[in-house]
Amino acid sequence: MSIRDALRLPAGPVDLKSIETDAAPGYDGKKADGEAALAAMGPELADLQERLFAEGRTGGTRNILLVLQGMDTSGKGGTLRHTVGLVDPQGVRITSFKAPTEEERSHDFLWRIERALPGPGILGVFDRSHYEDVLIGRVRSLAPPEEIERRYGAINDFERRLADSGTTVVKCMLHISAEEQKQRLLARLDDPSKYWKFNPGDIDERALWGEYRAAYDLALEKTNTEIAPWYVIPADKKWYRNLAVGTLLLDTLRDLDPQWPPADFDVDVERARLLDETPVE
Amino acid sequence: MSIRDALRLPAGPVDLKSIETDAAPGYDGKKADGEAALAAMGPELADLQERLFAEGRTGGTRNILLVLQGMDTSGKGGTLRHTVGLVDPQGVRITSFKAPTEEERSHDFLWRIERALPGPGILGVFDRSHYEDVLIGRVRSLAPPEEIERRYGAINDFERRLADSGTTVVKCMLHISAEEQKQRLLARLDDPSKYWKFNPGDIDERALWGEYRAAYDLALEKTNTEIAPWYVIPADKKWYRNLAVGTLLLDTLRDLDPQWPPADFDVDVERARLLDETPVE
Repeated sequence: MSIRDALRLPAGPVDLKSIETDAAPGYDGKKADGEAALAAMGPELADLQERLFAEGRTGGTRNILLVLQGMDTSGKGGTLRHTVGLVDPQGVRITSFKAPTEEERSHDFLWRIERALPGPGILGVFDRSHYEDVLIGRVRSLAPPEEIERRYGAINDFERRLADSGTTVVKCMLHISAEEQKQRLLARLDDPSKYWKFNPGDIDERALWGEYRAAYDLALEKTNTEIAPWYVIPADKKWYRNLAVGTLLLDTLRDLDPQWPPADFDVDVERARLLDETPVE
Repeated sequence: MSIRDALRLPAGPVDLKSIETDAAPGYDGKKADGEAALAAMGPELADLQERLFAEGRTGGTRNILLVLQGMDTSGKGGTLRHTVGLVDPQGVRITSFKAPTEEERSHDFLWRIERALPGPGILGVFDRSHYEDVLIGRVRSLAPPEEIERRYGAINDFERRLADSGTTVVKCMLHISAEEQKQRLLARLDDPSKYWKFNPGDIDERALWGEYRAAYDLALEKTNTEIAPWYVIPADKKWYRNLAVGTLLLDTLRDLDPQWPPADFDVDVERARLLDETPVE
C-alpha cells in the first residue's frame, strides 16, 4: 500500500488512541532510506510546484493548501522546513495561526482564514488553522457549545467551496504520543537554543491531553470529507513524518499534473524582433 | 576589500553605465568557488535567521527587509531561490510587486508597501518595491512630475522610519547589461518551460533602456542614504549575483548578532513539573 493510501483516514468514527504514533505506514525502509527518499523527491517537487506557479501566473486558478495540525511539539515547523523547504520560496505562502487577536475574534472564525488563503498557483501552508476553533476552542470552551457544533459544518462548506474554486486541500494531523511530547519538552529545557520554543503553559495543557485527543477524534470524524480528507501521520519518528508529508505533497502535485503554459505569442516573431531590434544600450 | 564594501554605492551622482555588469567585485574566486562559498554560508545563515526569528517571537522588534530591484531578467527570482532559499521558509515573507491594482492606485504609493512589511524577526523580501514608483513611474509618466519628485524624499523618510523601528533595509540593484538581457530573453524563447516568463512587452521596454537607466541613476543617487544604502550588484554572472546577495544577508545578520532568547521561566522548576506530572495519556 502506498504511503498516501496507508495514511488516509477511513470514514467513520475516529479513535486516535488506536493509531500508532511511532509506526511508518506504507514504508518499509529505515531512517536513512527515508531521508534519502525525501531528498530524492526534491527536484520533482520543485519542478511540479514551479509548473503550478507558472499556471497561476497565466490565468490558472489551481493551488494547494497544506493544513498542518498537531499537538505542541508534534513538528509542524520541522515538517515545513524539511518538505516545503524543498520548493522555491516564491511559490509558497506560510501562515502560522496564533491565538486570535481581538479584531479576529470580532469576526467569524473563518474570517482570518479567508484572508490567508493562497493565490493562484501558490502552495499555501497553514501551521495550525481553522481547526483550532474546534480543538482548543472546544477544550477550553472558547465559544458556546452550539457555536462549536456549528463550526464542523461551516468548515465542510468552506472546504467544499475551496475545492470548487480550484484549491486542493491536504490536511495532515501530526500524531505524537504524550510520552514523545514529554521527551521533546524536556529536550527544549535542556537546550538554551530552544528555550524560546518552550512555554510553561504547554505543561498545563498536557493535563488536558485526553480532552484534546477527544476533540481531535471528533473533528477528524466530522470533517473527513471526500473532497478534503484527513491524513493521520505517525509523527514520533521525525524522518517518517517528513517523508510522509513530502509524499503527500508530491502525490498531490502529480495528480494536478500542471503543464508549462503554452506561449500566448508567436515565438518566431518575438525572436525576430529581438534579433532585429535597434541596438540598445 | 570585502564584497559588501566593494558593492556599496558611494555617495554622489550615479552613472550605472560606468559600473561593469560582468565583474565580481570583492571576490577573486571562480564560478565553482563562488557556488561552494554560497553553499557553505547556508548553515550560518539559517542559524542566524532562526535566532532573529526567535528574538521576534519573544518581544524583539528587529527584522530585515531585502529589496531586490533590477531590469527584467536581472534575476530577482533566481537570487531569491538561491539565497533566501537557504533559510527556514517560516521566517521569510516574500512579496512580489506587480503593476498596482486600482485599489492600490487610489492610495499613496507607499500604502501597499506598508501592508507588506515584515513582522518582528522576519526576513522580508521585496521582489520589486516602492522603487518602481520612481522608475517605471518616471519613465512611463504614471504620475505627474512633481509627484515623482516628491517620492524620493517620501521614500527616504519612510526608510528612516523603518530603520528607527528596528528594520535593517538592504537594497540591491541587480545590474545587467542590455546585451545580457537580450540573451536571456532569447533563452526564454528557446525553452518552452520558460515561455510563461516571457512577455512581448518586455521587448518594447528595451527601447527605453536608456530612460530606465537614467531613472535608476537618479533614484539610486537620491535614496542612497546612510541608513538604507544601495548595493549595485553586477548580475551578468548569476553565481556572483547569488554570492553577493547571500553575503549581504549574512553580513547583515552578523551585524545584528541575534542571540537565543533567555528563558523567561525557571528551567529546573519546569523540568521538575514535567518529570513529576500525573501520568498523561
